[in-house]
Amino acid sequence: MFGSTEKVAHSLPIKTVGIIGGGQLGKMLTLKAKEMGLRIIALDKDPSCPVSSICDELIVGSLYDKEKLLELAKKSDVVTYEIEHTDTETLKCIEQEGINILPSPALLELINDKLKQKVHLISHGIPTSKLICEVSKEETVAYKSKRKQLPQFPLVQKARKGGYDGRGVAVIRNENDLHKVLETDSFFEEFIEIEKEIAVLVARDLEGNVESYPVVEMVFDSRSNILDMLISPARIPEEISEKAKRIAFDVINSFVLSNLKAVGVFAIEMFLTKSGDILVNEIAPRVHNSGHHTIESCYTSQFEQHLRAIAGLPLGSTKQHSPAVMINLLGEPGYYGKPAIVGLEEILRTDGAYLHWYGKSTTGPFRKMGHVTIIDESLDSAIGKAKRLKDSVKIISEGSE
Amino acid sequence: MFGSTEKVAHSLPIKTVGIIGGGQLGKMLTLKAKEMGLRIIALDKDPSCPVSSICDELIVGSLYDKEKLLELAKKSDVVTYEIEHTDTETLKCIEQEGINILPSPALLELINDKLKQKVHLISHGIPTSKLICEVSKEETVAYKSKRKQLPQFPLVQKARKGGYDGRGVAVIRNENDLHKVLETDSFFEEFIEIEKEIAVLVARDLEGNVESYPVVEMVFDSRSNILDMLISPARIPEEISEKAKRIAFDVINSFVLSNLKAVGVFAIEMFLTKSGDILVNEIAPRVHNSGHHTIESCYTSQFEQHLRAIAGLPLGSTKQHSPAVMINLLGEPGYYGKPAIVGLEEILRTDGAYLHWYGKSTTGPFRKMGHVTIIDESLDSAIGKAKRLKDSVKIISEGSE
Repeated sequence: MFGSTEKVAHSLPIKTVGIIGGGQLGKMLTLKAKEMGLRIIALDKDPSCPVSSICDELIVGSLYDKEKLLELAKKSDVVTYEIEHTDTETLKCIEQEGINILPSPALLELINDKLKQKVHLISHGIPTSKLICEVSKEETVAYKSKRKQLPQFPLVQKARKGGYDGRGVAVIRNENDLHKVLETDSFFEEFIEIEKEIAVLVARDLEGNVESYPVVEMVFDSRSNILDMLISPARIPEEISEKAKRIAFDVINSFVLSNLKAVGVFAIEMFLTKSGDILVNEIAPRVHNSGHHTIESCYTSQFEQHLRAIAGLPLGSTKQHSPAVMINLLGEPGYYGKPAIVGLEEILRTDGAYLHWYGKSTTGPFRKMGHVTIIDESLDSAIGKAKRLKDSVKIISEGSE
Repeated sequence: MFGSTEKVAHSLPIKTVGIIGGGQLGKMLTLKAKEMGLRIIALDKDPSCPVSSICDELIVGSLYDKEKLLELAKKSDVVTYEIEHTDTETLKCIEQEGINILPSPALLELINDKLKQKVHLISHGIPTSKLICEVSKEETVAYKSKRKQLPQFPLVQKARKGGYDGRGVAVIRNENDLHKVLETDSFFEEFIEIEKEIAVLVARDLEGNVESYPVVEMVFDSRSNILDMLISPARIPEEISEKAKRIAFDVINSFVLSNLKAVGVFAIEMFLTKSGDILVNEIAPRVHNSGHHTIESCYTSQFEQHLRAIAGLPLGSTKQHSPAVMINLLGEPGYYGKPAIVGLEEILRTDGAYLHWYGKSTTGPFRKMGHVTIIDESLDSAIGKAKRLKDSVKIISEGSE
């Protein structure tokens, strides 16, 4: 695809990578790309997005703008994305013109419709929570207004499209939760009693080699449903960890079997149930919040790994050299405008803590403004430090301190 | 200087840092600055210098251009430098206008004249090789043409100004080496039988706190006299290491005693003599090639540490979590023009190896084109990997492979 291995061995990774989206994931991809000597061109609607100050070129426009997507593709040797919300139809056309888009637009399209994703998993024998039924927008309105009865309690409703950071998911435990029903094309799935949420980051290169990172444990903010604390490695028995990795490999293989070009980094989010089963919750076909700790704690960060994979280079070691905990720095509810960190000093005075500040110009409730990774000799000590920082650090707005 | 600690604790590090020089050290400072959310403006004569594609603004001009230096200073909250070769007279004037330049121009001026640096060390009781005498350019011509006899053999001649990467130093062992005599204002110092070359990276913050990194061992390329392999921690007894750190602290303290604002990262290069003594060789008042491994192997990289120090933030932990070896990727003699890496594949397939490619547009003999840091569980294993990479990796020019 990019020439023979012989060629790769004797030339520089000077290719230009195009990134759809200019948020924090794109920024971290760009920082790593710059270290390796790659050029970056990004597309984002916000001229002051996190990627803006460090990419070689920023195309300002909607991620659904056909012309801008084409412009990005024409200027890049390979195109990837840091967010799923883009126009997969256009990307499929661009791909047919011979431009590499990785992972492939057809795969993204499958992932983007959570119902299709679910059906794909089920049809490939990947363990996942039971699908109860598909529901149209009209039906959801009927359920919400109690004109129609839900098939069962409790259940989980998932919007087919547009979900992100906990949006697009409703847990309906009983009659009192009916106001939570999302009025959109969606589906119901079985409610799972969760012991732990875990995730496996997997990378697949152009030659088909697959590598997984150590399984991580995710703790979610109960208010926002955004990842609140990530613990790596997960505190689970070795056999559970091995099983989770096997399932993650099966997921990647299911894409390959479906002729979907699965190249790059994927995050497979899973539930570890109270009865010890592992169920795939959902898949992100990109670098992911659950892999930020790899920057400081693993031999190859998820960002470098993704770039290696899509650039036709060999994958790097996924070994973790230090236990790590990552906390997101979310905008405090009630604060808007230019952000300010309360507790910066505490972060900087914590041994092994790394501040990543995305450089977004405004904060808002639960907006991801940055993150802190803590590495330490012991996981318990790192968790302790993370908890202390979570208590003392807040993202508010300037002037309100 | 930057407001009270209370202020720092409640605000973002959104200050703009101005960097004199846009080379690889500036690039690595910028990458870290971006992670932390700082803005970077740099001055360099080359519009396509390594910093160019990632800084917020590049001022193109000579590092000796008074107006450009002033422009840089006016646009920055604090100014620092990644290379010593700049106009310290102008910087002193700018400083008097109330602009922070760290470390201070007066300190840089002292360092830049190697004779003054030497006399400073001697007068503060810092161990260093014996100063034989000062020699004028005229005298060096006389020595070279044998019109005048050298005071002794062997000896080391050092140019007072302009030395860099081994340039400006001549080792005159006997009559046959007279052609090596540098025709410039310089001085002679005693020749030392060296067991090992070591270095201590030290950081001092605005409040006067000083931290040192583990002592490193430097192996030089005998052809170019450029750092060839860096080993951290140095393979020396604990008491030698402690002694080296004490001397490094004494050096920093000698600047403070001389009322020189020593804030930022300093590299103190030393000789460990065959008789077990430690002698200071020379001092770099900036981030340094001997500290590149800190990016991947230490809790706080030298680049973050320098930024913290000059931005008025607390220093981070200097602890090393993994043994590390760094090798420079130097341009192979005989190759010029657009660079190409032979052996890229080997680097990427080495577990724990990190490629840093500076993005210089042309290569040349012994030009620093990039570096590779290898971290591993054991230092011996890292050294083995580094040696294998040194044998297989070469920087040549495109089309010549």
